[in-house]
Amino acid sequence: MSPSRESDSLRALYQGWTDRMVADPAMDLPTMRDMFDQWHSTASEPEDVRYKTETVAGVPVIWALPDGADEAKLMIYTHGGGFAVGSADSHRKMAGHTAKACGANAIVVDYRRAPEDPFPAQLEDSLAVYKELLDRGYKAENMSTIGDSAGGNLAVASVLKFREEGLPLPGCVIAYSPWLDMEHKGKTLDTNADTDALVSRAILEGMAGMFLPEGASPSDPLANPLYADLTGFPRLYINVGGVETLRDNGERLHALATAAGVDSTLSIVDGMQHVFPSMSGTAPEVDEEIQRVATWYKK
Amino acid sequence: MSPSRESDSLRALYQGWTDRMVADPAMDLPTMRDMFDQWHSTASEPEDVRYKTETVAGVPVIWALPDGADEAKLMIYTHGGGFAVGSADSHRKMAGHTAKACGANAIVVDYRRAPEDPFPAQLEDSLAVYKELLDRGYKAENMSTIGDSAGGNLAVASVLKFREEGLPLPGCVIAYSPWLDMEHKGKTLDTNADTDALVSRAILEGMAGMFLPEGASPSDPLANPLYADLTGFPRLYINVGGVETLRDNGERLHALATAAGVDSTLSIVDGMQHVFPSMSGTAPEVDEEIQRVATWYKK
Repeated sequence: MSPSRESDSLRALYQGWTDRMVADPAMDLPTMRDMFDQWHSTASEPEDVRYKTETVAGVPVIWALPDGADEAKLMIYTHGGGFAVGSADSHRKMAGHTAKACGANAIVVDYRRAPEDPFPAQLEDSLAVYKELLDRGYKAENMSTIGDSAGGNLAVASVLKFREEGLPLPGCVIAYSPWLDMEHKGKTLDTNADTDALVSRAILEGMAGMFLPEGASPSDPLANPLYADLTGFPRLYINVGGVETLRDNGERLHALATAAGVDSTLSIVDGMQHVFPSMSGTAPEVDEEIQRVATWYKK
Repeated sequence: MSPSRESDSLRALYQGWTDRMVADPAMDLPTMRDMFDQWHSTASEPEDVRYKTETVAGVPVIWALPDGADEAKLMIYTHGGGFAVGSADSHRKMAGHTAKACGANAIVVDYRRAPEDPFPAQLEDSLAVYKELLDRGYKAENMSTIGDSAGGNLAVASVLKFREEGLPLPGCVIAYSPWLDMEHKGKTLDTNADTDALVSRAILEGMAGMFLPEGASPSDPLANPLYADLTGFPRLYINVGGVETLRDNGERLHALATAAGVDSTLSIVDGMQHVFPSMSGTAPEVDEEIQRVATWYKK
């Protein structure tokens, strides 16, 4: 089935960004961050969701509070953007849609970004927030980590970090188009190069260069969970767009998790671009996928 | 009294924009629009407000729906940004805070922007939305027009346009730091030049050049309400920041309205920058001013 006409909005947004980055190869970081903050623009405002700005354990966050959510259930959302761009604001609507479908609250984390704060600052922020939420009385099994792209990496790596710290683990983990491979070895990086309107080898190399400080290894499992031992990992939901270059990052994570005995689900949605849940509320195949996520979440 | 430490956030945001525009005098419009969309960043998420994306009479809007709002009361919010930048998204939080304080719903209008769509496209959009809202059963006297900067101009000029069309007029009008003078004759444009971190003669000339098409007059009352006959105009609330260059636009509008027998209130808040309600929820003098607006609104 060919993608819906509506779902072209994300390809068009990405192509516009790509055109601007090609036209201005020296684009500065403030400009790039402002540009990527338009990521929210392809999603509708999810109805019946309230928001609250707060600082949790020193980390700025936005709470997304859907009507009728189970107050015990909380999704910790880490946004995408190569660890360097994107924000809680750019992902507020997307997180709100998923939280609403799942009947849970969400907390969208404005973690520190590279290059000012390289790896592992992001995991430190995620850990600080998680500990504070445990202190506030949230039960680990009622929390989930969720994220997209680099934030999908963080959703997985955070759990590895929690385990390292001896903390109880979240009930489940959701990764939308996760970017995991800091060595850029994925086959779809080449085979989908012509169909992905945003993510290229050059962009990933640039982002990884900002993320990994001098001396950090691109095969450190906390930076690249494709090297992790996932034994005992919470149940995992991964989705990827059929035409995206990072498609096989999700496929490889699913294979790794399954081999380790993890209850893992992989959803590949045909014709979709990177982080297609960005079109929550505006494209039928995206809303169908969010409903599949919710059905899985509530299981 | 000196301004609060918190209220420095808007000055800092503006100074950052100014520094970038000075460093890149040829900054393109997409970059400038992305930059100004960060206008939301100095406001908190207003709590207990829901949102809804819709297209009303062909115009994209965001509804801001505070808990407990009087469903009959509606504020039509037109955002600032020199008619060329800014958006419903950049002003959603600010509009949400005011609507919540006033106990009304708000509809934030994503009107067409210059230079692609110069004057009077903005008034046509505002008129189309107003007519549709009347058709949906909202009573004119229960609606208000409200806006900031160029959107404060639109809040006033829209009412002149409604009057020209023979429509019933809104119950009241609110203008935050309105930019009205398309001839740049205001004395505070010079006397506050050193304290206003954003708005300069050069910026206003650039924006006016995009807004007014070939042949349009800068003294057309629909483009420059300082030339309007305000007799019979709805009651009017105007605020301005004490240190801003457009301060006397608000002062002159107040004088003009008062002379025409309009019930007009002018609030000048010491030490504040242009469109200081951008700091709704984050600075004490701003929240106090929004409460004054609400008290006036409910009168």
